[in-house]
Amino acid sequence: MGKGQELYKKAKNLIPGGTMLLSKRPEMFLPENWPAYFSKAKGCKVWDLDGKEYIDMSIMGIGTNILGYGNEAVDNAVREVINNGNMSTFNCPEEVALAERLVELHPWGDMVRLARTGGEANAIAIRIARAASGKDKVAICGYHGWHDWYLSANLGENDELDGHLLPGLEPAGVPKNLRGSVIPFRYNDLEELEEIINTTSDLGVVKMEVSRNMGPDEGYLEGVRRLCDDNNLVLIFDECTSGFRETFGGLHKKYGVEPDMCMFGKAMGNGYAITAVVGKRSIMEAAQKTFISSTFWTERIGPTAALETIKVMEETSSWEFITAQGEAITSYWNEVGESLGLKLKTAGLSALTSFSIDSPNWLKYKTFITQEMLKQGLLAGNSVYVCLAHTDKVIEQYRIAFEPIMQKIVDFEAGKEEIDKYLEGPVCHGGFKRLN
Amino acid sequence: MGKGQELYKKAKNLIPGGTMLLSKRPEMFLPENWPAYFSKAKGCKVWDLDGKEYIDMSIMGIGTNILGYGNEAVDNAVREVINNGNMSTFNCPEEVALAERLVELHPWGDMVRLARTGGEANAIAIRIARAASGKDKVAICGYHGWHDWYLSANLGENDELDGHLLPGLEPAGVPKNLRGSVIPFRYNDLEELEEIINTTSDLGVVKMEVSRNMGPDEGYLEGVRRLCDDNNLVLIFDECTSGFRETFGGLHKKYGVEPDMCMFGKAMGNGYAITAVVGKRSIMEAAQKTFISSTFWTERIGPTAALETIKVMEETSSWEFITAQGEAITSYWNEVGESLGLKLKTAGLSALTSFSIDSPNWLKYKTFITQEMLKQGLLAGNSVYVCLAHTDKVIEQYRIAFEPIMQKIVDFEAGKEEIDKYLEGPVCHGGFKRLN
Repeated sequence: MGKGQELYKKAKNLIPGGTMLLSKRPEMFLPENWPAYFSKAKGCKVWDLDGKEYIDMSIMGIGTNILGYGNEAVDNAVREVINNGNMSTFNCPEEVALAERLVELHPWGDMVRLARTGGEANAIAIRIARAASGKDKVAICGYHGWHDWYLSANLGENDELDGHLLPGLEPAGVPKNLRGSVIPFRYNDLEELEEIINTTSDLGVVKMEVSRNMGPDEGYLEGVRRLCDDNNLVLIFDECTSGFRETFGGLHKKYGVEPDMCMFGKAMGNGYAITAVVGKRSIMEAAQKTFISSTFWTERIGPTAALETIKVMEETSSWEFITAQGEAITSYWNEVGESLGLKLKTAGLSALTSFSIDSPNWLKYKTFITQEMLKQGLLAGNSVYVCLAHTDKVIEQYRIAFEPIMQKIVDFEAGKEEIDKYLEGPVCHGGFKRLN
Repeated sequence: MGKGQELYKKAKNLIPGGTMLLSKRPEMFLPENWPAYFSKAKGCKVWDLDGKEYIDMSIMGIGTNILGYGNEAVDNAVREVINNGNMSTFNCPEEVALAERLVELHPWGDMVRLARTGGEANAIAIRIARAASGKDKVAICGYHGWHDWYLSANLGENDELDGHLLPGLEPAGVPKNLRGSVIPFRYNDLEELEEIINTTSDLGVVKMEVSRNMGPDEGYLEGVRRLCDDNNLVLIFDECTSGFRETFGGLHKKYGVEPDMCMFGKAMGNGYAITAVVGKRSIMEAAQKTFISSTFWTERIGPTAALETIKVMEETSSWEFITAQGEAITSYWNEVGESLGLKLKTAGLSALTSFSIDSPNWLKYKTFITQEMLKQGLLAGNSVYVCLAHTDKVIEQYRIAFEPIMQKIVDFEAGKEEIDKYLEGPVCHGGFKRLN
């Protein structure tokens, strides 16, 4: 057993769940055999606690590092902050500069609030939107964090039904009085949203991700915008995941549909904690009628890292590169699936592409892929968050390792071989599901 | 007008409220004349955007920097994180080490969750406590952040009463269905808490600050503990502000009363964003039944900074030094008040001491003090968060500047002079009030 798994045993005794993020639990990748902890990360490489080096063709910090781990320009900006002091009784000027930059990139927006996590940014946006609309109910589509307002969607009509809408997001400890305050709707189903709007009194806000496993049908986002306009609803796009991956800013820029508010997170500070809410003045001013305030939102590293990250993104047109590389990876998967006769499907934005195989053994296959790729020094399951360090050469390395594993899966599917014999540990856990 | 006020004008157009934290709004200190932004901070010194240097005898980052701004040991630990990579697909081992350290310092606790802001730590603790107790209602005493669960205390019986319990904390945008879910109680009033417990069905949690403007009456905290034990309630101490200021860890260690959970924030990372929830295993395991997860809680700087901060605190016995210096400042204020015949009262923990003068003109006097101290290169109002850099020499400098200002206030109080003639800008805003 490596040092990482040893430490993880200790962690499970000290931290409920073992980690701070569900998606970074070793069980999500390779139970009992995932290296679990890092000593070093640079570009698309990660070193575990035993000093072993890996190429990260998986979640890349769960989408935080479009520029790769440890981008020099961003890190140097942060080093300067540390040299000059990262905190004081005064505010940091970088927060104003970042607000200005985000509004420049999203001219429909006027004002900005910053936070440090995506869950916070989501909760801030909802608070402001509710205050602006004067109404409490929210229609949602997508994943929007761990806070009460969102998980209340999972409070079933009685305790037995709790968790039924968004499987895997358990709502224990969320006040039952919030039941019914959030109404989920299906992506690309404009009629359902219209029905919800028509039948829900006290609905003031619509919050959604711009793109899900697949993009919007023609006219869908425009339709959502029109419904919100006609019914005086605040439209929020959650761009925590989609931002800066396919456009220079929000993914909504690609579709030409403007929200009233949107949030950014994950990639905006290239690994440093910073998130943002951007909104129209008429909505954002409602923040003055409510109390939204936190000590560490004044820390200087976050906005500094974001300003420099956005600068490097602009200089490198990073969103174009990662989209092109992601398209290449997606095409490759489709080709492999076709040539091997596997029921392989791809999904997601090109820059955070994923595949699955339609088989009752899929989770076993996923575990097998992770296990075998790891042996060859690659962190790789069924999804890739693409970064600037994912060059053609790296992708070629990935392909060389990947292909024989897929051929083995063909044998499993054909019943020539027994997958269970090849698994060296338990099967990986499935993630939580988004409502599709 | 200095560069800081110029930038702040811009900020108010870009950020609702102008800053990320209510307590750092320039209007809270010296409207129109506060330097507002910093270029540099080190020890107890801060430099504004014009390069002017000040000694910080005020909020010291709002209590984040017990070791002073820019502690070399902590900063070096953070620099090493940046050199080696601050984020990856794997987890950082420092989070396990920090969890272990916090449990060592609080042997009644077994498990830990980390976050990045105090509001988050409070929301996590409430979620886990509600999940563990299976009950939704919470009795509270003190300030516990900006989230819905807490501000719901301020939802009056009708809209006109909104905000009446905790003046200054406006609850617009908090779902009305949460009305009645949180019940505030007065500090040092055991009978009131007992009454609430006896008359509130579905009460599962008691959350409070260990000390408020004054410390606990004899037997009070023990009484709260007993009431919680007898009624099977989860007792949470919010130590975000009080932690590490008077003891090496939670203030509750001073009183020998142990909670079921407690939170740390502010000072724990000496200015770097990190907060924590510590709890008993039987309670914390309830986190497994609910979804509490955020990408940036996996970032490496926070726990690294906290580990090093706690180490330096131990090496320097910082809590003893800041308490002694705070006692000296408090005694000095009392002496000045007495010798000048002012109705001056002091309050708070020694290490975050404050004073006020019982006068209808108090806010004007506070503004005047800030204005005159600023002219002499001191950031100083009516409260001091003490740090290691607040040496006897610095305090002496403070006294020399402070005394003539207080003598002037004597003249104002006696009607010999008109305070309004001396104010060079508007009067400062009052902060939000805690329920006392």
